[in-house]
Order: sequence, then structure tokens, then C-alpha cells
Amino acid sequence: MVKVGIIGATGYTGAELVRLASRHPRVELVALTSQTFSGQEMARVYPSLYGFCSHTCKNFSPEEVLSQAEVVFLALPHGHAVPIAEEALRRGVRVIDLGADLRFRDVRVYEEWYGIKHPNPELAARAVYGLPEIHREEIASAQVVANPGCYPTSVILALAPLIKGGYGELESIVIDAKSGVSGAGRKTEIAYLFTECNENLHPYGVARHRHTPEIEQELSLIAGQEVRVSFTPHLVPITRGILSTIYVNLKVQVSEEELRQVYEEFYREAPFVKLLPPGLWPHTRWVYGSNFCHINFTLDRRTGRLILASAIDNLTKGASGQALQNLNLMFGWPEALGLDYPGLSP
Amino acid sequence: MVKVGIIGATGYTGAELVRLASRHPRVELVALTSQTFSGQEMARVYPSLYGFCSHTCKNFSPEEVLSQAEVVFLALPHGHAVPIAEEALRRGVRVIDLGADLRFRDVRVYEEWYGIKHPNPELAARAVYGLPEIHREEIASAQVVANPGCYPTSVILALAPLIKGGYGELESIVIDAKSGVSGAGRKTEIAYLFTECNENLHPYGVARHRHTPEIEQELSLIAGQEVRVSFTPHLVPITRGILSTIYVNLKVQVSEEELRQVYEEFYREAPFVKLLPPGLWPHTRWVYGSNFCHINFTLDRRTGRLILASAIDNLTKGASGQALQNLNLMFGWPEALGLDYPGLSP
Amino acid sequence: MVKVGIIGATGYTGAELVRLASRHPRVELVALTSQTFSGQEMARVYPSLYGFCSHTCKNFSPEEVLSQAEVVFLALPHGHAVPIAEEALRRGVRVIDLGADLRFRDVRVYEEWYGIKHPNPELAARAVYGLPEIHREEIASAQVVANPGCYPTSVILALAPLIKGGYGELESIVIDAKSGVSGAGRKTEIAYLFTECNENLHPYGVARHRHTPEIEQELSLIAGQEVRVSFTPHLVPITRGILSTIYVNLKVQVSEEELRQVYEEFYREAPFVKLLPPGLWPHTRWVYGSNFCHINFTLDRRTGRLILASAIDNLTKGASGQALQNLNLMFGWPEALGLDYPGLSP
Amino acid sequence: MVKVGIIGATGYTGAELVRLASRHPRVELVALTSQTFSGQEMARVYPSLYGFCSHTCKNFSPEEVLSQAEVVFLALPHGHAVPIAEEALRRGVRVIDLGADLRFRDVRVYEEWYGIKHPNPELAARAVYGLPEIHREEIASAQVVANPGCYPTSVILALAPLIKGGYGELESIVIDAKSGVSGAGRKTEIAYLFTECNENLHPYGVARHRHTPEIEQELSLIAGQEVRVSFTPHLVPITRGILSTIYVNLKVQVSEEELRQVYEEFYREAPFVKLLPPGLWPHTRWVYGSNFCHINFTLDRRTGRLILASAIDNLTKGASGQALQNLNLMFGWPEALGLDYPGLSP
Repeated sequence: MVKVGIIGATGYTGAELVRLASRHPRVELVALTSQTFSGQEMARVYPSLYGFCSHTCKNFSPEEVLSQAEVVFLALPHGHAVPIAEEALRRGVRVIDLGADLRFRDVRVYEEWYGIKHPNPELAARAVYGLPEIHREEIASAQVVANPGCYPTSVILALAPLIKGGYGELESIVIDAKSGVSGAGRKTEIAYLFTECNENLHPYGVARHRHTPEIEQELSLIAGQEVRVSFTPHLVPITRGILSTIYVNLKVQVSEEELRQVYEEFYREAPFVKLLPPGLWPHTRWVYGSNFCHINFTLDRRTGRLILASAIDNLTKGASGQALQNLNLMFGWPEALGLDYPGLSP
Repeated sequence: MVKVGIIGATGYTGAELVRLASRHPRVELVALTSQTFSGQEMARVYPSLYGFCSHTCKNFSPEEVLSQAEVVFLALPHGHAVPIAEEALRRGVRVIDLGADLRFRDVRVYEEWYGIKHPNPELAARAVYGLPEIHREEIASAQVVANPGCYPTSVILALAPLIKGGYGELESIVIDAKSGVSGAGRKTEIAYLFTECNENLHPYGVARHRHTPEIEQELSLIAGQEVRVSFTPHLVPITRGILSTIYVNLKVQVSEEELRQVYEEFYREAPFVKLLPPGLWPHTRWVYGSNFCHINFTLDRRTGRLILASAIDNLTKGASGQALQNLNLMFGWPEALGLDYPGLSP
Repeated sequence: MVKVGIIGATGYTGAELVRLASRHPRVELVALTSQTFSGQEMARVYPSLYGFCSHTCKNFSPEEVLSQAEVVFLALPHGHAVPIAEEALRRGVRVIDLGADLRFRDVRVYEEWYGIKHPNPELAARAVYGLPEIHREEIASAQVVANPGCYPTSVILALAPLIKGGYGELESIVIDAKSGVSGAGRKTEIAYLFTECNENLHPYGVARHRHTPEIEQELSLIAGQEVRVSFTPHLVPITRGILSTIYVNLKVQVSEEELRQVYEEFYREAPFVKLLPPGLWPHTRWVYGSNFCHINFTLDRRTGRLILASAIDNLTKGASGQALQNLNLMFGWPEALGLDYPGLSP
Repeated sequence: MVKVGIIGATGYTGAELVRLASRHPRVELVALTSQTFSGQEMARVYPSLYGFCSHTCKNFSPEEVLSQAEVVFLALPHGHAVPIAEEALRRGVRVIDLGADLRFRDVRVYEEWYGIKHPNPELAARAVYGLPEIHREEIASAQVVANPGCYPTSVILALAPLIKGGYGELESIVIDAKSGVSGAGRKTEIAYLFTECNENLHPYGVARHRHTPEIEQELSLIAGQEVRVSFTPHLVPITRGILSTIYVNLKVQVSEEELRQVYEEFYREAPFVKLLPPGLWPHTRWVYGSNFCHINFTLDRRTGRLILASAIDNLTKGASGQALQNLNLMFGWPEALGLDYPGLSP
């Protein structure tokens, strides 16, 4: 059993970590922290956990948490992870950060898009981008893992084999993504009220969403050259789920069948990525509450474009499930340990 | 491992059985049958099952299924279970029926409310009503179990301790229940279209819903005298979940605190029933996708009424999860085996 | 044209007033006030109003608003209406208050349930309870009207003919009500986030909701004796709509057909109350965005109970539509002026 | 008053026609036909219409309907409009067809995408494509109008000024559209059940949806050359609403501000198209139940792409509201007559 602490346990990604960790055969939760719900039982804040979690949330204290835990998950708003990560590493505690603070190799990109100065560029450079299907080996030996954003997970998994293979025109990539509201966290803003989201649908952050440079960093790395994308997120009245629809002009002659083989090959060892059969398009419901990513595509001969779609649960594969998948890799356990459950459908 | 067949695998309760059974440590699925999707892969009908189920659905053939299975789950519309159950029992295959055909000890009640003649009253008399919290011992040795209806499960669990203790005026019971749409199954009727259910709310089957006599049978048994209730179901735009709100006049002086002890005592051994702390009212979301039943109540001194509420997931504790709970009891396994997961929240 | 001001225009009932008033043939909006959105265009706060409202919201100033308006609607949280109403009346401006501050003839009831001292009991006594179907004449000549709560509107309309006729056992009334989330207003609390309400269902304020004494006041008035009810509200994942299901033991022999005549007679002059044909139960969707109240009932011979259901749109008939209906009466216009539109279905 | 018949009144677009027509000051409904609900009162099929429509649905009989009506709306599945339109025109009755049968000037396109032979190419050639903002004059004098599809309405309105002005690279157009479920009509298919749509999100008809050639026909006409687009529709769990997000590479140097002037100018006379202020992205809720189309865009300097979004209510501006707008033009009435209501928000 590995002793695990969760910093920021009462946000949605924190609660999802507790849900999954409570059933993981090798994880022992030793500390849950929360500013807002300090002093309250976790199972009172999320009564779905009655019978599964007897912890009381506490204010974060480095002493208390970092002396007990062997790994800490940070589920905090951006801008808060670095000092805690530094202290943890100092004490030999490994770190999986679910926020954005350590995702960028070049902190100038972070500073430009997030509008704040990065406090420790060296740490950022040292962190491993925790997308297991792309960085499996580096994750295994990492001391600090930057868990990917939800949108980037859905997009990079859909595009990696195509770009790796050099099939797409890199300047033609258009990503139209749709997310459930839990992606916004448990923030009490008017925009996330039921009455504002229900029976409604709209784009946001058009041409300036912060997941854009994260997608570009990883696609550029795979392509071996700079990639720029158009990325438009939308808010959709579902709780969980991201669907990304992606448009790429092909630059080489290739059949859909050949591309299917490329994808099958690329994800042969990946327990959580499924290329669906031809014609069966991803539905977010099929991965609901699960750690799977479903992908499909078609080659539109009329326009010469490949149209791809991928679906994940933003809280699971898009956040906390992926964080546990990283934990599994970091401790040399089977990658799918504690995570291989089917989605809840219907 | 016990070999299990599912007759009617592609309806919602059938699919939920497959979801749960695919992760149950002692269940081996040997046959899935479906009229509508015969010849199709189960994972094509419910793509959430890719990687978890490689079965192809077949038309039901007694030979094929009953020669392989040690237990069969029947997930069929009412009126179809008896001949299959008879054949199964003849071959020594145990039966868990998720429909209504074997739920009534007195088949005249069945015949009156369901409007069809019962083909085998003896079998009905022999079947055990599969509510584990009430009939645990009889289930353990049963050859044929009649799995309860979803509404009755939520209502009987909420009322059993009260009625057993003789606290309530039996003629005063009013049950106002609300269900998600999956309770209607996968029927293609106008009333269950998204456009008809969404942003809508209405009662149905008022004063004549078929779960009424089922509730009355079990409450009467507990009370030791005939009980008649008012039961009004409502259709609510959620996929999973039943919330039953129940009103009972108290006939003896008793404090809320004493009643809480009565309930705690009654459910001491029940792994899936939770009396929530005072003031924390059940939310269907907290049991979403899980086998739990959450209950709470308050004593309204102004009116002398006890007001209770209970929440379950209609597909899990209200159908397929409970069926597996019964399987566990029938085979002497731990009651919660393969079922003790927290609800998906949010 | 009558000059109208709206105090608190950017909450949901305020915005609904603007929506309806913008199409009312005799209303001229002269001032919209808002604390939160002061200085912003109303059509920027609610872009559905582009082309219908060119007002900018202002902080409330008695001078400015009350010197221009002939009537003011107060759409404020409780506890804020009295000083503004006093000032308005002083200046001869008539008042329609959508809050709770002037709904109780006996302010002790208000003080007990709302937990605050009433600043002007005399004004409360003088206000007319603005349920047109019950108090049509008094409203016509009122200077100050207390617009009913949403739940009470749905309940009182469903019960008035029954109780007026003396058919029901007054101590047996159980009201199980379900509301859309817009009933909570535009409050940024965790409980009203999309992620908390969606795919969820729960009771709240059990045995202590503040609409209980309001219902009791009006039913008592109709009955000519004190009435106490059990009233349980539930939060349901729809934006608009209240459905109240009501259970009453009958105390006299009466057929369902006779009761239907009683209701038809009672509401003969009421343009917005419809008794649906036998067997057609109210659906909130059928009154969506409209000022109608749909009612139906059945007599359950097995239990001797009458089971009723009524549906309204909580923002329209349950608040702002009803307020305009009161305005019509106060100015001697046709009661349905500017309000007789069908619901939006689907 | 103009006498109007509706052929196919009980589908969703038929019912929306009745809702709007019942409040239109110059329309008199003289006949409603329905195959499925023949012999039933329209207000029983859609109880929101109680008090607004006293018609009983009948089977279509040319004699009966076409001898009374001056105009008929056809709200039928594709493949059924031509014989009725022919008969109507023969009798001097004008036709507004809400289906696809008369939308294509070149019936070979229709035959290719719809897979059926067109029975009357001459009639197709004679019909006017009823998008008032583009074909206002031809509509005014038309005997037969082909009302546009819902997706094409949202797309063409968003792109027309851009393409007319020659700003966009025509081969770069990518359209990612999202629709509420009412767009599928009242069809009882598994895919449209509440349980299948709710908490779900997926693309469909990728690279082969039948609205593609309709969009291309109109954009080509505006461009003066052939245009091919990628068009991907998605099903979203809302009842009403289409949001189209559109990506176009710019081929000339132009500022966002200049483009805003181009759009303002283009739609100066259009009562139902609103370019929202910079940064305020269309929300389907803002046009809910209304005939408006909200548009906005931003120029993404990083990629050289213009990103546009437009929102309509698919049943109103996307179907029945637009049909009445066409009626207004055909009879020389003000274009917005009976249609200028704000959306229902929230």
C-alpha cells in the first residue's frame, strides 16, 4: 500500500480522486485537505462516499501531510502548486499535480497565457507531462508529474498517431471541443448555475483558451516542428464528458483503412484508448465515469479532410483517473490497476 | 466462478447486469440473449462494454443457455418469465427474475393489476421476494428469486423499520415517488423521447400503478395486517434515480432520536442501506450507479406526521445490483461482493 | 400607457417581468434598477432582450424611479420591500411586491417563519394577497398587492374549490411539490450549480419551508377555520416549472364527476386556470413560459383519497406573469392582456 | 385574415406552426391534418394549446383542405411534398414547404443526397429558397417557397456577408454544428430516447449529412462559384437550439472592426438577425422560442482564421417561425408580424 495525500480534496477533481482511490487496491489515503470545508467530514461534503472514506478535511499543513504521505496529488487552482510541490520534493514525497502550473516546458508560454510569473522554471522543466500514452517511460521514473488538462487529453490522444505519421497538414488543424460543466470545477459563478447552463449551449474563450498552448506544446513535440491550432471550447449541459471534433487536411495519399492500422498500432499497449469500429462515433455516455478514451474518424474525400472525434470523461481520463494511471506507472503497477471499469451507460 | 446467463441482455436492466457482472470476481457470463439485437455483439449495442464483454447476443434457446448456465437472470417484460423459469428449474438452473411475474404470493393480485392470467400459481408461491434486507435467509436457499420492483425497493426499505415497530398509522401512508426515465426501459414510445421528458415533470399511473400491490404485499407482511397505500409515481428528467417521499401519521409517542435508533438497529447488518445524519436529505446523485439506498426522515410536530425520503439508483439497487446481491446470498458469498462501489458524484 | 418601474430587474423574476412587459400593449417601462448590474444595459445582462429593451440598469433612487413611475414592481429578496413600498405609496405610486414581506395578514406568522421583525404591520394588513382567482375584486382597488409565492399559487389554485365546497378533511392535506431551479433565483450557491442539480433530485426545507404558512393562511381563509398542511418541496433538474401533487381524504360522498363540475364552476371566469380532461395529468412543459395553471385530479376509491396535481411555470404564473395579471386588474384592463400566449411545447 | 392549412400538424414543426399561428394577427387556421393523430383534438395532442386551438386533426384530403385554404404549410417527411404542392398550386393555393423536396435548384443534387428520384424537377426549379434575409424579393412574389433546413439557416446567415464580400478562402470552410434533439422530430427511435440523449454528446452523419449540399448551394450562389464545406452535426441534450461554430481562413487583409461594419450593413433591414457586441458569444438560450438569429465572430491573428458562431431556435427561426416570416413577405405584411417576441431566458 502506498500512502497518499490529496491537497484540495473537495473540488470535483479532488472528490473524483477520493472516489477512485477508495477502491484502488494499493492506495491508502492518509490525508485530505480543503480550505473551504476544513473541519468537515469528506463523506458529509460528498455523501456518495459514506462507507468509503472516514477522513475529515483539514487545512493544508506541510508538516502533517508531507510527513505521512509518499505521494501527494495537488488538485488546486493554478498558481498554487509550486510551493507545495517544492516542499514535497524536498521531503522525498512524489508529486502529481492536476493543475496547469507545471505543464509547460517553456514557462514563457505559461506566463503569457496565464498572465502570472512562474515561480520556479527549473521545476517546470523537470516535471513530466503526464499523458501515459505518450510519455509512459518518463512518467515511470518521474518525481513530479504534471497531469494534463482535460481538453488536451482528448485532443492529443486523437491526433498523436496522425501527426507522428506525418499525415496531416499541420497548419490546417481545427479543434471544436465540447465540455460538460464539471470541467469548470465547483466554482460559484452565475455562468455555472443550473439555470444558466441547462437548455443552453455556447462557445467560450474563443481563440484564447489556456488549453491551446498545452495542445500546441505536445503536438509540436510529436511533429518535431511548431504546430498552431484553432481551438474552440463549448459549454454543454451535461455534467461529465468532453467530445472533441477535429478537422485536418491530409497532405499524403492514405486510405482510411491504412490510418486505422496506424492508430491500432500506436495504441496497441494502451489499455484505455479504443478506436471504435468504422461508423460508430464516440458518445460521451460510453465513457461516463470511466478512464477510457474512445476515438473514431472518417476520411472525407469531397474535401480531402480527415474528421476525427474523441470522447473522454473530463473528471476521470481528463483528470483524476489519469492521475491514478500515472501513479500506477510511477510505482510499477499494472497501468490499469483500480481503473478498469466500464462506463455507466445509460 | 459461477456460470451465469442473462435472458434479455440488451434492455437497460440487462445491460446493467452485464456491466456489474463483468467486474464481479465470481461470475462468468456464459450467454446473453436478445430478441431485438440477436446476432450483434453486446459491446456494439452498448459500446461502454468494449473491453469488458466479448459476447454476441443470441436468440434464447433453452438448450443452449440452460445447458451451460448454473443461474439465469431473466430481464424480460412481464408475462414472459414463467415458461423459462420452469424449464430452468427442471434442469436444476437457479433463477433470478427481474420482472413482476413471480413477485406475488397471491396470484389473484397479480391477475387483477396486470390483467393477465398467471400460468403457474404454484411457482409464484414458491418464489422468494428478493429484497435481501427483509428476506435474507429465504433468499439464501431459494431456487427462484423474484427481484423486487424499483419503486417497491425504495419504499419498503424506507418503511420497514417503522412498520415493524408499529409506530405508524397504517391507513395514513402516502407515497409520492419520482423516477428517472431509465425506469421505463428502452421502449420506443413518444412519452420517453428526450424532447418529451426534458424540461418536463408529471405524475402518471395515478392510483393505479402496478407497484402499488407489490408495496402493499410486503408492508402487510411486515405489519401482520392488511396495508393500503396511496402511491403516485412521477417521471423526472434524469436518467437514473428514484426518490420516494413518504408521509405517515404516527400513532405512538416516539422521538425522532428513538426512531433513528430503531432504523440503525434494523439495518445494522445491511451493507447497502444508510440512514443519513439528521438534516441531510437523500439526493439521487449520491447513489448514482451504486447499490446503496440512502434514507432520512423528520418528525413534523406541527402535523404529527413522520416525513421520510429514500433514494436509490433504479437500475442498480432498484434492479440489477440487487439481483447480484441476491446471487451473492444464494451462493453464500459476502453480500456486497462485486457491488461495493461509491456513487458517481457529481 | 402606464409608466412602470421594476426594482430588482436583473434577478430571474425581474427579467421575466421585463420580458413580459416589453410586449404588453399598455405598459411603458420607465426604470429598471439593479444593485449587482448597475450601469449595465439590461439587454447585455439578458441578451434575449436585444431589440426589446434599451434600458440601462441603475441603482435604486426613490427620487428618480418614483417620480416617473405610476406603478412599481418590487422583485427583491425578502426584508427589503417595506421602506420602498412606504415611499412609493407616499408618492401615490402603486406597488406590486413579488417578495414575501407583505403576504401575511398576521405579521407574527411572518416573524416566526422568516425570523425577522416586521417593520410595518399596518402596511402588511393593508396589502392584498394578489392571487387573482381568489381575490379579484380586492386587487382591482388595491394600492399595494403582495404577489403570491410560486408554490402557494400552484397549491391554492388546486385546492380552493375543494375546500370552499367543504369536501376535504382539512387535517389530512399532504402536499408534495417539485420545482425547477429558477425558483431559487440567480443565487450563486453551490447547491444551484448545474453540476449539483443535473441528474439529481432531492427534497429540501422539509417541514419548515416558508411557503407553508402562506398556503395555510389562504386555505384557512377559504375554509373559515385553521388549516395545517404537510408541505414538502423538491428540487428537480428543470429550469422552469412547479408540479404540486396533493393528497386529501374526502369527508363527504361525492363523485369525481360532481367535483369536476365544482371546479369548472369555480374557475368559469378565470382565463388562466384549466381543468384538464379526465386522465390527462398536468405536465410542466405544457405551461412552459406561459401564465396558465393546469389542474387535474382523481378519486382513489381504494383509499378514499382525492389525488390532485397542478402545474405552473414558477416564473410566469408563479411570479411575474401573475404580477402583470394583477396590474391588469388594478387598471381595469382585460385580465389576460399581454399574457395570453400558449406554453412552449416542446 | 388569410386562411391557412397545415399538412402534418402534429410533428414538432407542425405544432410550432400552430403555436405561432394561433397568435398571429392575420392568420386564420382552417385545417390541420395528421396521419398519426387523425380524429384527435390538436389540443389533446399538445395540451399547451388548450384555449388556443379548437381544431381536430384530420387525414389529409385535397378537397377539404385545398378548397378552404389560401396557403398551406407542408410539414412532412421528405418525399411527400410534391404531389400535394402540385395539387395546391393547381387550385391557386400558395405553398410553403418545410421539408427538403423543393430546396434544390438542381434536382440531381437532391437525388444524390436523398437517394430518391425527384418527381417534378420543374417545380423544384420554380420554388424559391425561403431564407428571407437572402431572397426577400423573390419570396414576396413566390407561389411556392421551400423553407430552409435548420442547420443551413444558422450557417448561411453567419457566412453570407463574409462570402458576399469575398473575404474568406472558400475551400477552407469548416462548420461544426450542434443541435437540440427536437431537430430530429417526434420520431420514436432508440437514439432519441431521453435515456440515450441525456448526459450524452456525439457527432452523427459525419461528412454525409443532407444539409451539406443545401448549405453549399446557397453559399455557391452568394460566392458566384462552387463552394464545398465540411459540415459536422452533433446531437446535444437540449430540446431547442442550434449553435454553429464556423472556421474560415481569411484571404484578404481586413480588421474585425471592418467586418463588423460589413455585417451590420448586410443585415440593416433584417429584423431577426443580431450581431452581438464584441466578446458576447451567442447562447442558444437567448433565442429560445424566438425567431432571432444571434451571430458573433472573432479574428484569430495567431492562425489567420475567422471564427464565427450563430445561434437559432431550430423549431422557430430554423423552421416554423421562418415559415411565418415567409408568409408575411408573401402577403406584403411587416416581416416580423406575429413573430417579434424575445427568447425565453432563463
